[in-house]
Amino acid sequence: MHVTLPDGKQLDLPDGATALDAAKAIGPRLAQDALAATANGELTDLMTPLPDGARITLVTKKNPGDAAALFRHSLSHALSMAVGEYYEAKGFPKEAVKRGVGPYIENGFYQDFDLPEPLREEDLPEIEKIMRDIIGRGLDIVRSDVGKQKALEQFGYDPYKVELISELPDDEPITFYAQGDYVDLCRGPHFPNTGKLPQAFKLMSTSGAYWRGNEKNPILQRVYGVAFATQKELDEYLRLLEEAKRRDHRRIGKEMDLFFTSEVIGPGLPLWLPGGATIRRELERFVVDKELAQGYQHVYTPIMAKSELYKISGHWDHYNEDMFPVMKMDEEELVLRPMNCPHHIQIYSHKPHSYRELPIKIAELGMMHRYEQSGQLTGLSRVREMTLNDAHIFCRPDQIQAELRAAIELIQDCYNVLGFTGFSYRLSLRDPNDTEKYFQDDEMWNSAEAQLREGLGKMGLEFYESPGDAAFYGPKVDIQVRSALGKDETLSTVQLDFLLPQKFELEYVAEDGSRQRPVMIHRGLLSTMERMTAFLIEQTAGNFPLWLAPRQVAIIPIADRHNDYAWELRNELHAAGLRVEVDDSSNRMQAKVREAELSRIPFMLIVGDKEQEAREVSLRERTAEGTQERKGVKFDDLKAELVKRRDTRA
Amino acid sequence: MHVTLPDGKQLDLPDGATALDAAKAIGPRLAQDALAATANGELTDLMTPLPDGARITLVTKKNPGDAAALFRHSLSHALSMAVGEYYEAKGFPKEAVKRGVGPYIENGFYQDFDLPEPLREEDLPEIEKIMRDIIGRGLDIVRSDVGKQKALEQFGYDPYKVELISELPDDEPITFYAQGDYVDLCRGPHFPNTGKLPQAFKLMSTSGAYWRGNEKNPILQRVYGVAFATQKELDEYLRLLEEAKRRDHRRIGKEMDLFFTSEVIGPGLPLWLPGGATIRRELERFVVDKELAQGYQHVYTPIMAKSELYKISGHWDHYNEDMFPVMKMDEEELVLRPMNCPHHIQIYSHKPHSYRELPIKIAELGMMHRYEQSGQLTGLSRVREMTLNDAHIFCRPDQIQAELRAAIELIQDCYNVLGFTGFSYRLSLRDPNDTEKYFQDDEMWNSAEAQLREGLGKMGLEFYESPGDAAFYGPKVDIQVRSALGKDETLSTVQLDFLLPQKFELEYVAEDGSRQRPVMIHRGLLSTMERMTAFLIEQTAGNFPLWLAPRQVAIIPIADRHNDYAWELRNELHAAGLRVEVDDSSNRMQAKVREAELSRIPFMLIVGDKEQEAREVSLRERTAEGTQERKGVKFDDLKAELVKRRDTRA
Repeated sequence: MHVTLPDGKQLDLPDGATALDAAKAIGPRLAQDALAATANGELTDLMTPLPDGARITLVTKKNPGDAAALFRHSLSHALSMAVGEYYEAKGFPKEAVKRGVGPYIENGFYQDFDLPEPLREEDLPEIEKIMRDIIGRGLDIVRSDVGKQKALEQFGYDPYKVELISELPDDEPITFYAQGDYVDLCRGPHFPNTGKLPQAFKLMSTSGAYWRGNEKNPILQRVYGVAFATQKELDEYLRLLEEAKRRDHRRIGKEMDLFFTSEVIGPGLPLWLPGGATIRRELERFVVDKELAQGYQHVYTPIMAKSELYKISGHWDHYNEDMFPVMKMDEEELVLRPMNCPHHIQIYSHKPHSYRELPIKIAELGMMHRYEQSGQLTGLSRVREMTLNDAHIFCRPDQIQAELRAAIELIQDCYNVLGFTGFSYRLSLRDPNDTEKYFQDDEMWNSAEAQLREGLGKMGLEFYESPGDAAFYGPKVDIQVRSALGKDETLSTVQLDFLLPQKFELEYVAEDGSRQRPVMIHRGLLSTMERMTAFLIEQTAGNFPLWLAPRQVAIIPIADRHNDYAWELRNELHAAGLRVEVDDSSNRMQAKVREAELSRIPFMLIVGDKEQEAREVSLRERTAEGTQERKGVKFDDLKAELVKRRDTRA
Repeated sequence: MHVTLPDGKQLDLPDGATALDAAKAIGPRLAQDALAATANGELTDLMTPLPDGARITLVTKKNPGDAAALFRHSLSHALSMAVGEYYEAKGFPKEAVKRGVGPYIENGFYQDFDLPEPLREEDLPEIEKIMRDIIGRGLDIVRSDVGKQKALEQFGYDPYKVELISELPDDEPITFYAQGDYVDLCRGPHFPNTGKLPQAFKLMSTSGAYWRGNEKNPILQRVYGVAFATQKELDEYLRLLEEAKRRDHRRIGKEMDLFFTSEVIGPGLPLWLPGGATIRRELERFVVDKELAQGYQHVYTPIMAKSELYKISGHWDHYNEDMFPVMKMDEEELVLRPMNCPHHIQIYSHKPHSYRELPIKIAELGMMHRYEQSGQLTGLSRVREMTLNDAHIFCRPDQIQAELRAAIELIQDCYNVLGFTGFSYRLSLRDPNDTEKYFQDDEMWNSAEAQLREGLGKMGLEFYESPGDAAFYGPKVDIQVRSALGKDETLSTVQLDFLLPQKFELEYVAEDGSRQRPVMIHRGLLSTMERMTAFLIEQTAGNFPLWLAPRQVAIIPIADRHNDYAWELRNELHAAGLRVEVDDSSNRMQAKVREAELSRIPFMLIVGDKEQEAREVSLRERTAEGTQERKGVKFDDLKAELVKRRDTRA
């Protein structure tokens, strides 16, 4: 047999040769460094016979490719072996530990066990220690094929293995992987030696998991670990995990009294408490005013329609399973809308339009309902009822480029105010092979995609193309915002649509008197209020800028005799429309300051004798650099500064 | 037999005597003036035998009581007779005109006909003329009883009469009323003589109506008339009718492009066009800001809940037929909310509260859905989806009076800004006999009703009491606003509720550490956005004050060469947030002015050479007194004035 190397060279090898044989044939150094290989693009290990004629590459530390998948998988075997040794050391027979599956997953691995006594979280460090010892032992990982009958005999004590083996075909060899005295049924692939596994791993937690995911089966105990090639990567991952916990919008939403869900109201239907509602109201007014200034016309349309409307629009076919159940009235069937487009189309087609009127930009804070499964629902970010900062631009074909530019500039403008800096542009195209999702009209798609590509090019924006991410009716530009946790989220989108104008037979009267079809641009700016608020909470970790902060100013009198002065200042700031409170409780001053800090109130005004006499305050302001103190600040100056910063959203 | 007069005197009369006999016994003058009578409180005519021992009063012009019911009924006979004569004059035999029913209705009467050829609207004046002639003839209206067989013979030619007579009992006499040669089957009562009927009537229209209201029956032609005792009343009625047409919010809504309903979306689900949405947005921001300044806390809550919620609240029992159909999800049944109270209760009970925190005022622009029958739906005033300017105040029992006062003062404050002057206070109490509608707890009702009565008294407000108008959970103060058409409408309401706090087991921790039940005050201020907007349209006939006007300023260049100047002014006003447009069409100046007036734009800025040179405008302002013109107005002063008036809602 022979294999082909990446540089095109052919290598002759004895029949049944493995990637390790190939590495040895190239040189002893490579044989030493090799961790795994790919054969015809697929990951394999060094111990598995190569197919004749395969194009191969060798995976090393320097050229790791997908090596993480392998070492995470091998680490799950190390975990499995370690747990076995742990219970043996406790005096249990080897057969007392039975095993479910143990695959690699994103960032790590897990292994399911049926144990003679449950493993506690505090036992995990000890298991980890045994795993590190197994790595230290430098055990070869050996692959072997066994007949079904022998396999069943070997694992007779373990009903899970027996079940799995029984389901395999009778006439094919069954693969085992062994390291030291630990053997497991496994398809592989694996690293060649436990000594080559990274030490940059950590066991994170245990949980219950039904055997084969079926709740009628017994519950096994699952142990989770994370693993990376280097300690640096592991540390960064653990840091981000801590950060994600710290910024979790559900946790902060609870701490700051922003929102909650109620058992008796229903899942995915959050109630916005006054604090969260303040953030939402400020966002809504901000974006509505921006849009009005840009010539958008705001409307209010019903949150439901006859189901016929969605049959015309195509949502019924493409979107039905995401829609709420139909409500049968006396004479019609109504359904909660999953999108606002068809309603805005009704607004457009309510009157005939001349080419001179276009573009017509219809905007709405449009409430929509989507039937998400209960299990998918979380906080404000996955909900069943949502309000989209939505708009539809009806324009002439010759206006597409200008409207695309105007929409993107408005998005940039808003991101600027919100302090979003890391964002990128994704041009989402159809997947031409997905004939089920996408409306079939090559000419339309090609034209629309070309228009967007050209428009982005003219704006000088860098963008990347992503086939298969288009909407069913047309391609779109997604603005991808980098979250505080380093993930890209699509918050805003500009979508080009030739299809709905056709389905609803939209028209305008052109300059020559002929009837022409307008183009629709679907434009989402701040996303849904729910999602944007969740995003902002995570982005700011609850430390909102002044204009968005639910509680803007706390006034803290040092002693009771300063209460009147504190209330006098409070009333002046309240009259200026600021959200201000006085902590005139009997707590000590330091406790009041700590309480205000925990509440994430950006401005603290501390007032005592000196301040009262001079109509001043001692200011503690939360900034990006931490808390800054300014003593002897004139109250009138401060008030003017606060009002200005609020009004300019600085 | 005898009868008793209003002064207690008894009058002896021969058996079978009528009210006319009684009048004659009292005196010839009264016999002359008498129009009808009441016997034991019920209206009767002068020709019907009185029951023995009845207490009677005589109806005259000076003491008309319900006389209108009688003369409207008699006018329908005059109409019926006139139509007969009209067709006889055309050469048709008497039997060619067949008749359905002809009752009196509010403000008038109608009569249904099956005619040999249809009556056109333009024939009505001729019919009216014959009716006036019949009145002039002074025909006695004579009552007689006839046996069934004879009645059937007499009306053999008229299938409708035959049908009616056939259904009457065989052994009771059937009553006929005759005047001149016209006779009709009728139970009465009637005026004694056509000469006593008022001339203050008018035939209004004709329409089709199914015989006995059943669409399987033949369609008859119905002729409508209105009638009053005096010409003055008729004139006032016709004026109000014209006024109602002129102010009809559906007509104005169409003319001003404020809203519409769409066949494909569904009945009772209006779409707010940009103009109407502007009015609504301004109202919403106005009232939300007012409430925030008064210490209300605004929230957003889901527009639906599990049906259980409404079983706890009692809406399910008291309100079910007004609710939308339930939506069955995987694990729960959801239903659109018909009221916001239970959601706000969830907000309250989300956290424990101390007596120090109360009152807690939860407010929301809360969307609700109610299942109105299609036939009931009209414009914005009767809809299926509505957004209520709602609030619920949770307070201690000792705070009720202060909160009632604060709520009413806030309502007065808002009415003041909206220019509502004629309003009154209705104290709506339960009907103690209506055990189905009202929760049964005498002590609770008595205490709540007494609290409101006392609170209104302390405020020095005049009010009237209205049993049977309370909500199912408690009594309320309804603020009745007098509409431009002279009708009282309940726009705002303050309702006291001891019941829901009990059903939801609400609590607060009192000063002594005990757990106490708070009281709820339901408070509606601007009503629903739909209803308030409809009301404001009718109130202003579309001539909105500056801050609410969808289009605030029109700039009209006199010639093309003034267009640049016009656009310069437009951009300055637009930047100041005013809704401003330039009419730079090729129309003549006078046409542009007329167009702006028809659009009800309150400010027109006309610019020509002189204005441009001096940076001035010629102003046409719509005021309560008509259009006022000011020439040579400095633009910068005007801009400052407009901004100030907008901001102060003056």
